[in-house]
Amino acid sequence: MDPEVHLPQVPLRQRTATLEDFNTLPSHVFPTNTRVRTTGEIELGGVPVTELVAEHGTPVFVMDEADFRGRCRRLAAAFGGGEHVHYASKAFLSVTVARWVADEGLALDVASQGELEIALTAGFPAERITVHGNNKSEDFLAVAVRAGVELIVIDSVEEIGRLAKVASGLGVTQDVLVRVKPGVHVDTHEFIATSHEDQKFGFSLASGSAERACLAVVDAAGMRLRGLHCHVGSQVFEADGFGLAADRLLGLWARLIDELGEESDEATALNTLDLGGGYGIAYTPDQEELDVETVASDLLRRVRQTAVERGLDAPVLNVEPGRAIAGPSTVTLYAVGTVKDVHTSDDTVRRYISVDGGMSDNIRPALYQAEYDCRLANRHAIGTLVPTRVVGSHCESGDILINDALMPDDIAAGDILAVPATGAYCYMMASRYNMLTRPPVVIVGDGQSRVMIRRETVADVLALENIDLEKTPR
Amino acid sequence: MDPEVHLPQVPLRQRTATLEDFNTLPSHVFPTNTRVRTTGEIELGGVPVTELVAEHGTPVFVMDEADFRGRCRRLAAAFGGGEHVHYASKAFLSVTVARWVADEGLALDVASQGELEIALTAGFPAERITVHGNNKSEDFLAVAVRAGVELIVIDSVEEIGRLAKVASGLGVTQDVLVRVKPGVHVDTHEFIATSHEDQKFGFSLASGSAERACLAVVDAAGMRLRGLHCHVGSQVFEADGFGLAADRLLGLWARLIDELGEESDEATALNTLDLGGGYGIAYTPDQEELDVETVASDLLRRVRQTAVERGLDAPVLNVEPGRAIAGPSTVTLYAVGTVKDVHTSDDTVRRYISVDGGMSDNIRPALYQAEYDCRLANRHAIGTLVPTRVVGSHCESGDILINDALMPDDIAAGDILAVPATGAYCYMMASRYNMLTRPPVVIVGDGQSRVMIRRETVADVLALENIDLEKTPR
Ligand SMILES: Cc1ncc(COP(=O)(O)O)c(C=O)c1O
Ligand SMILES: Cc1ncc(COP(=O)(O)O)c(C=O)c1O
Repeated sequence: MDPEVHLPQVPLRQRTATLEDFNTLPSHVFPTNTRVRTTGEIELGGVPVTELVAEHGTPVFVMDEADFRGRCRRLAAAFGGGEHVHYASKAFLSVTVARWVADEGLALDVASQGELEIALTAGFPAERITVHGNNKSEDFLAVAVRAGVELIVIDSVEEIGRLAKVASGLGVTQDVLVRVKPGVHVDTHEFIATSHEDQKFGFSLASGSAERACLAVVDAAGMRLRGLHCHVGSQVFEADGFGLAADRLLGLWARLIDELGEESDEATALNTLDLGGGYGIAYTPDQEELDVETVASDLLRRVRQTAVERGLDAPVLNVEPGRAIAGPSTVTLYAVGTVKDVHTSDDTVRRYISVDGGMSDNIRPALYQAEYDCRLANRHAIGTLVPTRVVGSHCESGDILINDALMPDDIAAGDILAVPATGAYCYMMASRYNMLTRPPVVIVGDGQSRVMIRRETVADVLALENIDLEKTPR
Repeated sequence: MDPEVHLPQVPLRQRTATLEDFNTLPSHVFPTNTRVRTTGEIELGGVPVTELVAEHGTPVFVMDEADFRGRCRRLAAAFGGGEHVHYASKAFLSVTVARWVADEGLALDVASQGELEIALTAGFPAERITVHGNNKSEDFLAVAVRAGVELIVIDSVEEIGRLAKVASGLGVTQDVLVRVKPGVHVDTHEFIATSHEDQKFGFSLASGSAERACLAVVDAAGMRLRGLHCHVGSQVFEADGFGLAADRLLGLWARLIDELGEESDEATALNTLDLGGGYGIAYTPDQEELDVETVASDLLRRVRQTAVERGLDAPVLNVEPGRAIAGPSTVTLYAVGTVKDVHTSDDTVRRYISVDGGMSDNIRPALYQAEYDCRLANRHAIGTLVPTRVVGSHCESGDILINDALMPDDIAAGDILAVPATGAYCYMMASRYNMLTRPPVVIVGDGQSRVMIRRETVADVLALENIDLEKTPR
């Protein structure tokens, strides 16, 4: 079963060294409104997991609405107002969630025509939408301009021409940012001050193409340059990378003001610095989410100071967190199926616990070697900790959710496992591989659960097919 | 945009050293009924690509029915009859394709309840279905047994108990195979004679657990042991691995016959050796698909000879190709959008061609670093070859289809690119990431195209959501 998958060869992690550790929920990895009953059963948003599973089946994504909204508020407060926080909808988008984001006063990022359509279906105010993408077609641009989106982030020379044509055709002046590659790349725990030029997004600062693009935008019909954008990485814990990118962008900013003439309309229109998303969250107990209050106040101070030093009016600072809003809100519940001990060599045994989902509902371990936490959700465990791998039901040996953990040996078929921090880039990247159709997404809060997105079925798969193309076999 | 993706750092490949090379289709990588018109436009199954794109849009999967059916026939002939060739439906499954497989007289493998349901919906004869999976629930087993599938492949000790309960409950004796880890792992071009014990599938031969499982099956109620199964890898070009696995399985077979007593009913019931799938195909011009005729005749001879040497009746030999049947049948057509030159360092420029699909319709490059070929499909190219990367439209820098190729510099927005050999593990693993909904799958043949699976739309996404959960924002 392993189409070419290379199993990650990670050394045994002693994350949970004792049974007590395992039975103690790492509360910073679970949604805010998670409680453990005295029996050990987990409650999410006030609803016990056995009730959730009885009502909605497994696997199921359970999203804590208050956690999601709380993070919106915290970020809005940290960055001085919801208008400065653009939720990156690629992390998790639905009509309902777009309405929460609107309700909390945040702005919204979309990265495709489909994401824009869903935002508009939700009634999200277009004047708070920013449009991204490396390959925006004329159609997509026309839909965006016609809808009245606040900002389009220009990503290529060709796009300037396309937007000029579309906006002029519609008689509109569209506000835009130019996406810049600041030469800073942040890879989780370290940042590299020069790198990552060889990728599809943005214009290089170093080569001068960013500056040329800005001037071309200023000269182009149908658009107005409002500022600069960059995005230095995802799941970032090294916040200095944001600051360094801001410094570099302000260098370009100063040159632009010079070239445009300080008092020109073009120079005074420039007022927005968008530093992208990437705020790291805790997937596993040993991780601590980035402290957004500290990051925000440091960044705001640094940008203000650098602006003063360069004799500039400080720009408005916007950010685009996706994962930091959606990620921690959600827990995936799986039912345990087959448990099997595998002799990996003469003297070690690894326990394989199969659950009823896998790489179809969470591709991140296979795609990025992402690590997750996993707990027994329906009761306290009582067994002995043994080296365990949690795997999915797919016909592929790389279908692994938790590569290597110590878990109690009493976990058995019918138990419920909880994998936290699955709110971002899981459902959005879900497939129907092996016809394991997508789980539902259920909202919890105040002791109630509501189905936001229902479970897919084989009937949904078949609904796309013209099943009468071929005669039925004898 | 790059949630944690590490870009593959492959040296520049000089696959197409000249423009003529680029304009010459590598016919062994494209479906059988592919022709190039004098203008350079590609015809698939007699339908020009511009016509396909005008009718069905882009991206689109185009499947050559005759190619798919031809491979079914070739494999059936090579292995002595369609009943010995079990199409691994995980590679590509639809009702229509299941009917083609039935029509060509092949057997079918399913690896989940969903795959089984689709096969049954197609009217695929249950007595030619084999059921796989590491995590078969009682429900799934009950559906399979009730449907009357030919074989269930036992994958764990727990499953023996589950099946005994289900089959006895239904008063049925179910034929089964036992899945064995033969300790052979074939990784494309080499095989490792001892490895890969540490994975979720099967019972270890070396540790004796395979033998114990077989004896437990023989003793269990409700089932009859019909033989042994193994699967040594995927995209295999080193056919000796199959033979070595067969030898090892026949060693176990001989021991079982001994223990059961040569004349016993249990020993005479043993008659099936299933060696799994994995036959390699050509994704790129430098690859040659595994010659299945040679592999089959070598394998059949080797199994017969080993059986004679061990004093056994030669078992029936079954195989389970998925990719080798579905993979080469299909070409993905994309429209070129943004073209952009990126200065990767002081003296090199890489051209980025963005297309309107990407990792949502083909996750294999991002997931397995899989390589594909890519050609201009609507005309002959006339430009100069330049280092090029073909990327998708997703908001992620790892969204790469072709990492590094030399392609003509006249390819521009509106051109059509063809990526061949996308029939297996592409549509099946497709997501809706960034709301890029799934492309249609169109069948071609005899100058006609027919929609087998229609394009998904944002309306299909919204159909799963209860969009009235939240009030519309002001
Ligand atoms: C048991 C089994 N049989 C058959 C196959 C099909 O492999 P392929 O498509 O490479 O022929 C697989 C692939 O994972 C498998 O696991
Ligand atoms: C431009 C841009 N903004 C924001 C984000 C959101 O990143 P995260 O979810 O890590 O905050 C991304 C992620 O890829 C991005 O590309």
